[in-house]
This record gives sequence, structure tokens and C-alpha cells, in this order.
Amino acid sequence: MWFTSDNAGPAAPEVMAAVQAANEGFAWSYGEDALMAEVEAQIRDQFEAPDAKVYLVATGSAANSISLACLTPPWGAIYCHPLAHVEIDECGGPEFYTGGAKLVLVDGQDGKMDPDALALKLAAARVPDVHHVQKSTLSLTNVTEMGTLYTPAELGRLTSLAKDAGLRVHLDGARFSNAVAALGCSPAELSWKAGVDMLSFGGTKNGCMGVEAVVLFDPDLAWEFELRRKRGAHLFSKHRFLSAQMAAYLKDGLWLDLAARANRAAARLAAGLGAMEDVTLLAPVEANMIFLHLSEARNAAAEAGGVTYYSWPDLTRTPDEKAAPLAARLVCDWSKTDAEIDRTLAAFAG
Amino acid sequence: MWFTSDNAGPAAPEVMAAVQAANEGFAWSYGEDALMAEVEAQIRDQFEAPDAKVYLVATGSAANSISLACLTPPWGAIYCHPLAHVEIDECGGPEFYTGGAKLVLVDGQDGKMDPDALALKLAAARVPDVHHVQKSTLSLTNVTEMGTLYTPAELGRLTSLAKDAGLRVHLDGARFSNAVAALGCSPAELSWKAGVDMLSFGGTKNGCMGVEAVVLFDPDLAWEFELRRKRGAHLFSKHRFLSAQMAAYLKDGLWLDLAARANRAAARLAAGLGAMEDVTLLAPVEANMIFLHLSEARNAAAEAGGVTYYSWPDLTRTPDEKAAPLAARLVCDWSKTDAEIDRTLAAFAG
Amino acid sequence: MWFTSDNAGPAAPEVMAAVQAANEGFAWSYGEDALMAEVEAQIRDQFEAPDAKVYLVATGSAANSISLACLTPPWGAIYCHPLAHVEIDECGGPEFYTGGAKLVLVDGQDGKMDPDALALKLAAARVPDVHHVQKSTLSLTNVTEMGTLYTPAELGRLTSLAKDAGLRVHLDGARFSNAVAALGCSPAELSWKAGVDMLSFGGTKNGCMGVEAVVLFDPDLAWEFELRRKRGAHLFSKHRFLSAQMAAYLKDGLWLDLAARANRAAARLAAGLGAMEDVTLLAPVEANMIFLHLSEARNAAAEAGGVTYYSWPDLTRTPDEKAAPLAARLVCDWSKTDAEIDRTLAAFAG
Amino acid sequence: MWFTSDNAGPAAPEVMAAVQAANEGFAWSYGEDALMAEVEAQIRDQFEAPDAKVYLVATGSAANSISLACLTPPWGAIYCHPLAHVEIDECGGPEFYTGGAKLVLVDGQDGKMDPDALALKLAAARVPDVHHVQKSTLSLTNVTEMGTLYTPAELGRLTSLAKDAGLRVHLDGARFSNAVAALGCSPAELSWKAGVDMLSFGGTKNGCMGVEAVVLFDPDLAWEFELRRKRGAHLFSKHRFLSAQMAAYLKDGLWLDLAARANRAAARLAAGLGAMEDVTLLAPVEANMIFLHLSEARNAAAEAGGVTYYSWPDLTRTPDEKAAPLAARLVCDWSKTDAEIDRTLAAFAG
Repeated sequence: MWFTSDNAGPAAPEVMAAVQAANEGFAWSYGEDALMAEVEAQIRDQFEAPDAKVYLVATGSAANSISLACLTPPWGAIYCHPLAHVEIDECGGPEFYTGGAKLVLVDGQDGKMDPDALALKLAAARVPDVHHVQKSTLSLTNVTEMGTLYTPAELGRLTSLAKDAGLRVHLDGARFSNAVAALGCSPAELSWKAGVDMLSFGGTKNGCMGVEAVVLFDPDLAWEFELRRKRGAHLFSKHRFLSAQMAAYLKDGLWLDLAARANRAAARLAAGLGAMEDVTLLAPVEANMIFLHLSEARNAAAEAGGVTYYSWPDLTRTPDEKAAPLAARLVCDWSKTDAEIDRTLAAFAG
Repeated sequence: MWFTSDNAGPAAPEVMAAVQAANEGFAWSYGEDALMAEVEAQIRDQFEAPDAKVYLVATGSAANSISLACLTPPWGAIYCHPLAHVEIDECGGPEFYTGGAKLVLVDGQDGKMDPDALALKLAAARVPDVHHVQKSTLSLTNVTEMGTLYTPAELGRLTSLAKDAGLRVHLDGARFSNAVAALGCSPAELSWKAGVDMLSFGGTKNGCMGVEAVVLFDPDLAWEFELRRKRGAHLFSKHRFLSAQMAAYLKDGLWLDLAARANRAAARLAAGLGAMEDVTLLAPVEANMIFLHLSEARNAAAEAGGVTYYSWPDLTRTPDEKAAPLAARLVCDWSKTDAEIDRTLAAFAG
Repeated sequence: MWFTSDNAGPAAPEVMAAVQAANEGFAWSYGEDALMAEVEAQIRDQFEAPDAKVYLVATGSAANSISLACLTPPWGAIYCHPLAHVEIDECGGPEFYTGGAKLVLVDGQDGKMDPDALALKLAAARVPDVHHVQKSTLSLTNVTEMGTLYTPAELGRLTSLAKDAGLRVHLDGARFSNAVAALGCSPAELSWKAGVDMLSFGGTKNGCMGVEAVVLFDPDLAWEFELRRKRGAHLFSKHRFLSAQMAAYLKDGLWLDLAARANRAAARLAAGLGAMEDVTLLAPVEANMIFLHLSEARNAAAEAGGVTYYSWPDLTRTPDEKAAPLAARLVCDWSKTDAEIDRTLAAFAG
Repeated sequence: MWFTSDNAGPAAPEVMAAVQAANEGFAWSYGEDALMAEVEAQIRDQFEAPDAKVYLVATGSAANSISLACLTPPWGAIYCHPLAHVEIDECGGPEFYTGGAKLVLVDGQDGKMDPDALALKLAAARVPDVHHVQKSTLSLTNVTEMGTLYTPAELGRLTSLAKDAGLRVHLDGARFSNAVAALGCSPAELSWKAGVDMLSFGGTKNGCMGVEAVVLFDPDLAWEFELRRKRGAHLFSKHRFLSAQMAAYLKDGLWLDLAARANRAAARLAAGLGAMEDVTLLAPVEANMIFLHLSEARNAAAEAGGVTYYSWPDLTRTPDEKAAPLAARLVCDWSKTDAEIDRTLAAFAG
């Protein structure tokens, strides 16, 4: 029973079959393959965005970093949550790709940016003033890094503040599918209709081998995106293998089916874990991720029972490793079944 | 009949099967998968380099750029041929990854760097002198961009000059397999025994979907490589799909079999083309690439006969597009058969 | 009566005379002038650091950014106070010079970093872990941006935490002279003896035209510093004019005399202002800078009375410009006299 | 008798006096000083460019690198002569400031770019094509690095080719004054009327302490220039000392008088040296620089006679230091008198 991340599980059979099928014969390299045209058409259609430009890369970090570089000059400020993947988990990739822009942190509960905190930061930003980095970009994440969700209205409130201040908006949607599936809204409602200019639309964590679509609702940035992708060495020669994954993922709502399965597994798991003594959920479980504090004993029982996940002393609370509470994260991918969740809960129960 | 590039054809069935097989169950992310250990062991064994460190990325440009960044400080000079992929075909990726190092061009016939020209440049380099970029790295390519080969002795002569001047050596081996297959020497003889410190060992152009191994014969650079790979957004979460390709490629000499097929097809094709009126081979055909000048009529005949390849007015000779001779490149991949080559020659014959 | 900054006033006559004198005849360019040797000897002597290397640049931002770039790889984390000049006032210069390192903010009262907060951040830093920026450098400022001081013991506590965690230490000493003068300790006690590896030793704000010395207590970084300075376009050809300023500044304790005058003026001014109704000092006035909240009326009176300084709505408290309290900063330079301070106080008194 | 460079001599007395005078009282920092307004007005007037924006920096490298960064995206190509200062003498500063743009070398005799060679390169540039750097900027130098001159017509021919290809044009005018003085044309004729968009107008080498004006004939780039200057740490707080130098330099044609003196000295020196046995001038002496090959004996005589200049084995011809001819450079600054030139010639005569 494996819950380290939704990137540790298998790809969906439909995706694997598409990759295999794409291997037939010859194809133009570097994104000129016929499948890519299909991908763009599908995304334009499903997002109700007939002018959008779409590009594929193989990692979520690439999608985020290249997008931020298109939106932000080297002297720009990118406003993001302190837990954002772009801030914490990309080893400074955004700084690298932007040529040294600054990520300005705007806190908020449960991994969600607080609009008042954002308003405060934006008001205090000194522009135009050559001494300071200049406010440029808002980067949000949905599903958030704490497994919570922004509703379209919540997104809209943040992006309105940003737009009023002249910023453009990036959405890290590594788990965008889980968000759409959980909220039951349309892809458009959770992206451009909510003020998003550029979306990292994740596939890897939800049943693909390794592919992310970057959706540019502002097509003016397309050429720059292409140059930055190439220069960052993220333009695949045998691009058809990226296209094939994404095409299969988009077909017949597969992406939403897979996400719904992961969300459902997480809800079942959270319900069980939340009811256990010694377990405290750290944030509402709204998609496919669960964060919790738990006792050493509970942790040991789970591990002994064959459950694999990440746990660590929570050193954000105290620098003393022994006094720190034990935190853990469990992530459900699309392949989890009810039976597996129940076995997992049994292991935690000890 | 398709000859635009060896990246336009299908992946080998063994590679596809391995990818499919790797999709079973869960695996540690980010290169901690069991298949990666197998890959490293195989490369160490086949290269007779028990201390080498091995990393996988998905594009040749990533392999080259990250390697050059590990070998070269921002104020360093990288010596390469004017036709080198790192100079011409990566949209400045090496400059981006190194933080602005300078590629210094050292010419030579048939895509091969002239040792005397290298000696001249190295002697004229002013070091240590804070006003100038400081000589740091030699970057060679084998098979060269003109389809020719460096023998181990030729490599050694260039790398000796470099080592005597304090440089380290990178080899762009996007078609390393074709070189080894053509020369009949060992991988070691064509890499570390010939003075190479860091090798981009290509898989993509020779039957993989998209994977390149970077071999660090100097393991001291390993940690920096890992950080630069991550920061460049080239560390795959579902890394097992890279590992699986490379493991299959390395198994039972598949990589050499595939390369030998491509080389053989190119030789057959070159023999036929070279005998035609109006066709001039621009360099010896020693691996799987053919460069030629041809008449407009010959070009038209080939296209009409269903041969797909790149041709262009050779504007390096004259800025007048109409007066420029017509140049073309044909590349054979592993999938070419004798029958297909013969059909291709028939089309060219008109 | 001008208090916008200590960079708005005149240079000291001794400095101007030295510049004039240095204009005699010819001199080797780019730092090879005889005066530079004198500067290095003086600093080694006054800092009791016979192995230190010393370089001159013309701006404090250059001193800071180039130093941080020598101490921090592109994937490194620099820990600094949220108010640090390197974070706020250099338009991202440190990110630019380091190739995209990350400034990690560690808060604390009165512009001084809280050791417990630093310990917490260092403990929570995940190293070695390729996903995150790697802790590299501690950057402190003394005099702080709030006009307060770190004692040698306070510095030592912070640098000890840093050294134990493997970091190196940079000190932004744009107002180092004011700190030494105020604390009455030796330059060594406030730099290398307190754990500082690299010091930006300011001249510009304290009576020079434009010169800062970077003192490398770790001479191993010297060559890299020279290359980065040149590459950043901060190596002066007519370097003797930088040397001359710094030599005069170091001679016979001029730098400490000038600083003592500025500190004394600020103390006198703060005493007067602090006693006024409607004025709240925002931090202890320990050197030559005063931060305060004041009423609109008081502010208007001062301006009407001919006092020039910066005031602004304090938007860090509320994003509503009208509701924000009025903040102000007054900085005393070396040229202020008791009489001028008294006239200033009279203006504030209205 | 000192001829190493025109940056080794004294500043002009008018400049020194102006610096001294500027030290009176307080002034707004960071370029808001009154003298700067005067500088901009003077340059607009003398260049007949009422919309031009003008900025000051302290080094020629800063002027060049920041300008090129405004004109060139990270994926851009900058066309320059192989001997250009931006290519050879700035330790990669342009690559650093641009974020890794590529300098593409276009050769030509006597340090002057050959228009046919430029046309060839521009025609061969593949745009728009994501695989290659994209042609962006032409960077010329006048006076060239070989001491020769482009006439307005010669400049115009090169800039026309550039403009037709969509490039913008930068002129490194470290010795622009010497060019204008020698050619007897107007500043406008040698800059914007000849197609120059951005000019590095040098002061340092011609009688200033350290100041260069960047003239933006395209004012749209002004804000970006300001941000890049600040971020590069080249915005002086006590900016009035830069303004004062430049204002004095511009006043009453001082810059042209000083340049004429230097040119005249060089002509006198070249005439004498050129007549000597064992001496070969390497390029026409059209401004204030002389390049020559000379015998070891002649070199020894000059050194013995107290002449200071640079000489070196010309390793661009052969990597064998012993077989290489002895090259030398002599540069005359504004302070050279006829008497000093004659004494110098006597020393060379032995």
C-alpha cells in the first residue's frame, strides 16, 4: 500500500496503449507531430478557449518555471504561498528560468493564500521604483500543497486583486484534474474565467508517464514560450510520445475519471484516519492528499502493516528534532481501490 | 522513405516492451527506482568504469547543457567546433545553463576540430587574466555534426592538448553508439581512455523514446550535476520510464546492434547517391548521416518519389538565395532496411 | 537641513583632497595602482587580519552582490532579515549576481535577526536534498536597516548557528563605521572575530564620494571575486580614484571620526524628537538613523521649516493608504553640527 | 612616457574642478541631482536628439553590457567583430547581463566589420526557428579596437543591413570623442543618423575620472535600462559626482578638444615609428591608438629609454611563443605633448 506520492504509481492503461500506438512509423519531430494538433484542439475545446496556445513538457517543474519566466522579468516579483511547489520543491528553478526574479511569500491557512495578506503586500510594493523588484506575477496552486481547494470564487478574488495591481496570473495545476473533479466545475471556470493567464495542466501525477500541458490563454506569449522551452532543453525531438500521453488523457474525460478515483480514495482514507485516536488531520481533505500529525506508535503500526508514505519530525514548529511532533503525508493516486484503502486503514489501526 | 533525422523514426520494440513492463505497481520517484541501479551497473560495466556516476535526462540538449554547466564556470570558455550542436542547435542552452559562459569556436574540416587550430587558440588564451573569459572546457562531438568520426587517437590528440592547458573534456555522444559501432572499438576507448571526463550518451536518436545517459567519469561532479538537473526541471518524478528505456537499450548490446543497422543503411545509401551525376558528397560518410550538394532536378525527383529529408539553399556560401547551391542532409535510423534504401535510390534516380 | 540619507551629503574634505592628489601623472589601471597596495595594508592592519584580501568597488550594492555570489551557489539559500538591503533595496541584484539563489527571510525585532528564528529555519532546511535550495550563506547587516546594532556577542551567536550548519557569513557593513564607533569595539571584534567571512566595508555613506571595500577574511575566494567583479563591470580602469578615497578614509582614523559625528548628531536629534508629542520612535536609535511615526501636523511643520527627509504612509500595517500611520526616516551624515540639529528640532517643534 | 592605455593618465583639470565644486552641500541621490538634468540637456542638444534619454555609469563595460541587455533577449544573437571589447575584454560581461545571449563574430580587416561578411551571416541566420539563437543586435565600435575609424557612410552601410534584418544597433563609443574629432563630423552623423539606437559615449578614456553616458535614441528602453542598471549595482547614490564629470566634459567642447590632442599626438608618434626600420604598423593610425610589430631590439631600446607600453608575442599567428612576432600597442591620451612624443621617438630610436 503505497502513498508517498501520486507520482509513484503506474500510468493508466489507456495512456500506455496510446504511447505504444504512437510508435508506428515516422513523425515530424519537435512538436510538429499530428497528435499534438489533436491535443491543442482538445484543450481549446474542453477549456472553451479557442485562441489558447498549448505546449507540452515532461515535468511539472518545467511547466511552472518556463511559464513564470514568460510572465516575469528578471526584476519582477512573483507572489506565491510559502508552501508553493515553485518556492519550496524546485531547487530554485523559477529563479533560474526567470534570470533571478524574486518569489514574495504571502501566507494563509491550509495552504491557501489569504486575500487580505495579498492586498497588504501589493499595497506596500513600491512601483515604479528602481530600487525594488517590481510586482509582476501571481502564482497560485490548485489543488494546494496542503490538499485543499480554491473555489472559482476564491481564485477570482485573488486574481482580481492581482489584475488590479497590473499582475498576470499563473496557476500551478499539477493536480488541476483533482480540483476540477472535486469541485464539479468546468475547466474554464477554474482557469481563465477565474483570471488565470497561464496554466500548468498536470498529467504526470494523474495517470500519465510524464507529461504536462502548458495552456497560454494569452497567445501573445507563445513564441517566447517556445524559445524558453527549447533553450531550457525541454523541447522533445520524439515529441509524439508526449502528445500521445496527453491525447489519451484528454480523451473521453479520462483525466477527470482518474482524478475522481484518487479523490474518492483519499476521502475514504481520511474518514478512517480522522476517526483514530492519536491522529490529527492538519487540513481539510478536499482532493487526494492527506496531511496529519500522528503518534510514533501509530506510525510504527502502519509501517509494520506495509503502508509506505512519508513521515517526518515537524521542524517548522521547533528546531529540536526530539520535541517536534510527527507529521505525515499520504497521497492517493488514481489506482487506489476501496479494498486497498480498507487494508491501509486496518494497518493503521494496528 | 523518411530521412529527416534519426529522431523521426520509431523506437525499438525492445525499448517499448521495457517501458510497458516498467509500469507495474509502485516505484520510488526521482531516480530512486530499482531499474536505475541496473542502468548504472550496466554502464559502469560496459564502460569499464567502476566509479562512474550515471544520470538520465530526456533530451540530448539537457545532457549537454547540464554537463557543460558542471564543467564550466560562468566566466569560462568552452572550445567547440563551429558546427557543434551546443553552438548551433540548442538556442543558447549552454549559455543559459552555465550562467553565460562563452563558446569559442575552433574550426576544422568535415566537422572535426583541427588540433593545430585548437593549439593556437589555447596558446593565445590569456590566463589568469581577469579581463577575459578563462579557458575551461573542451566539447567535442562524436559522431560529428557532419557525420564523420574521430578515432580514439584523434580524440586523444585533442584531449591531450586540452588537458595540458588545464581544461576538462565533454563529449556530445548523441550518436556515440554509431561511432562505437563504426569504429569497432570499446566504449572506454572512445570515452575516458581518450580523455573524456563527461559523456552525453545518446539513446533517443538510436531507438529509444527519449532518454540520454550522462556518464561522469569524474564522480566528484555528481552532486552538482544532481542539483543542476533538478533546478533545470529535468529530474523526472516517474523516472522509472527513463530507466526502463536505457536498461533495455544497454541489454545484450542492443544499442550497438541498432547503431550498426543505421550505419549500414547510410553506407548503402551514400554509395548509391555518390555515384549519381549532380550529387556531391560534402563529407565522408562514416556513420549514419549523409551531407550533399545536389541539383534542383535531382531534389525534385527524390521528393516526387516519396523521399522525405531536409534540403536548403546553402547560404553559408553566398547571401543570395538564388545563387546558393542546394544542400541536403539524409539521416538513417536503425529501422532502415536494404529494400527501403534501394527504393530511396530509385526515387533519387528519377 | 537634509536628512534623506547619509548618501545625500558632501564628501569629507580629506577625501576630496586625496582624490585631487591622486590625479598626478600616470598609474597602472585596474587596481594595480600603488594606492591600492596601501589600502590593503591599512585594512589588514586595522582589522588585525594579515591574510585578508581587499577589493574596491564603487557601490554598496556591488559589494554585497558580488560577495554573496562568491559565497553562494545558484542553488543556495541566503538567510537574511526581511528588511535587509540585499532583500529590499537592490532590485534583485543578489539574485542576478548569484545566478538565482534564494533569499530566505528570518525575522526579528528592530531590524535584528532573532537567533531562535534562525535556528528554526536552519533546522527545517532539508539538506542534502536535491529538491530544495541548499543552505549556504548568512547575510547580516550592522548597523541594521532600523538603525540598531548587533554587539559582537549578538553577532557571534548568529554566526555560530550558521557555522554549525555549514554556512558562511557575509556582513553588509554599509554603515560598519557607525557600528564600530558606537560600540567602541575593534573592527576585528565586529567582523572576523565574530564569525564574518566577507565584509562590505562602506565608505560612500560616511564621507567618501563612492567607494566600498570588500574584505575577504577567507582569501581563497579572491580570484573568484576578481572575476565576478570584472564580469559585473565593476573593475575600474582609473582605479586610483577609488584607492585614493579609501586610503584617505582609513588614514588616522578618519572613518571613525566621521562616523562618531554622525552618531552624535542622531542621538541629539532623537532625544529631541522622542520627547515630542505625536512622535513615536520605532526602534532604539543606536547609530545614525532614526525611524518614527509622527502626526501629519508634525510632518507638515518640519517640512515647512525646511527639513528634508522621507515620510510615507506605513502600508505594511494596512493596505488602506488613508488609514495607514505616517512613518518617517531621518539619517544623519558626518557633516551635521549641533547647531543644525537644534534648528531641525525647532522646525519640528513648529 | 606612458602609453599603456588612455585610461592610465590623469583626468583633465576642468573635470577635477567640477567634481570638487559638486561637493557643495546636499543633493538628491541616485541620479536625481540637478547636474544630471544639465547633462541630459547638453547631450540632447549636442546630438540633435531632443527625445534621447541619457544615463550615466562609471565603466565602459557597464555601459556596453547593460545596453546590450536592453537590446537583446537571452536567446538573441549579437553580431560583433572578433576584436570587439564586448567579445574579448569584458570577461563575458555581455553574456552575464543578457542572461546568456550569444556573440556572433563577423570579421573584417583593421578591426572593421566587413559588410559582405555581415550580409552572409545575416542571410544564413535561421529565423524564426526555435532551435537557434535569434538575430537581435549589431554591436559596432568606433574608434575600433585597432585604432581605425568607420566613417558615417561605412557605419550606415552596416546598420542598414542590420535594420533590414530587424536588428537594433549598439555603438561602443569608448573612444567616440576621438572618432568625432578625427572625422570632423557631427555627433549625430556618427550615431543616430548612421543608424545607432544606443550609444556608449565614453568619458573615462578621454579625461574623466570614470564616467560613461549611455544615450538611448529610442527612449522606449529607458525604464528597462534603469532597472538593469540598478540591478547590476551601477546606480550611484552620490550620482552628482558622475554628473559633474560629464557636465564638465560636455561643456564648451572640452571632450572634442581633449580627443583632438590625443589624436594629434598619436599621428605624430605613428609618423615617427612608421619610418623606423624593424617597425611595421598593423593598421592605419586614424585616432589615438597605434598597433605595430617591432623587433626585440627596438622594444628593448624603448623600454630602456623609459617608454611604458604593452608588448607581447603575437600568439594569434603561431602557438609557439618563441617563433611569434612581437606585437605592441601604444595609446595616446589627451595629456600628451609634442615634446613628450619626440622624447618617446628618441627612445625608440635607441
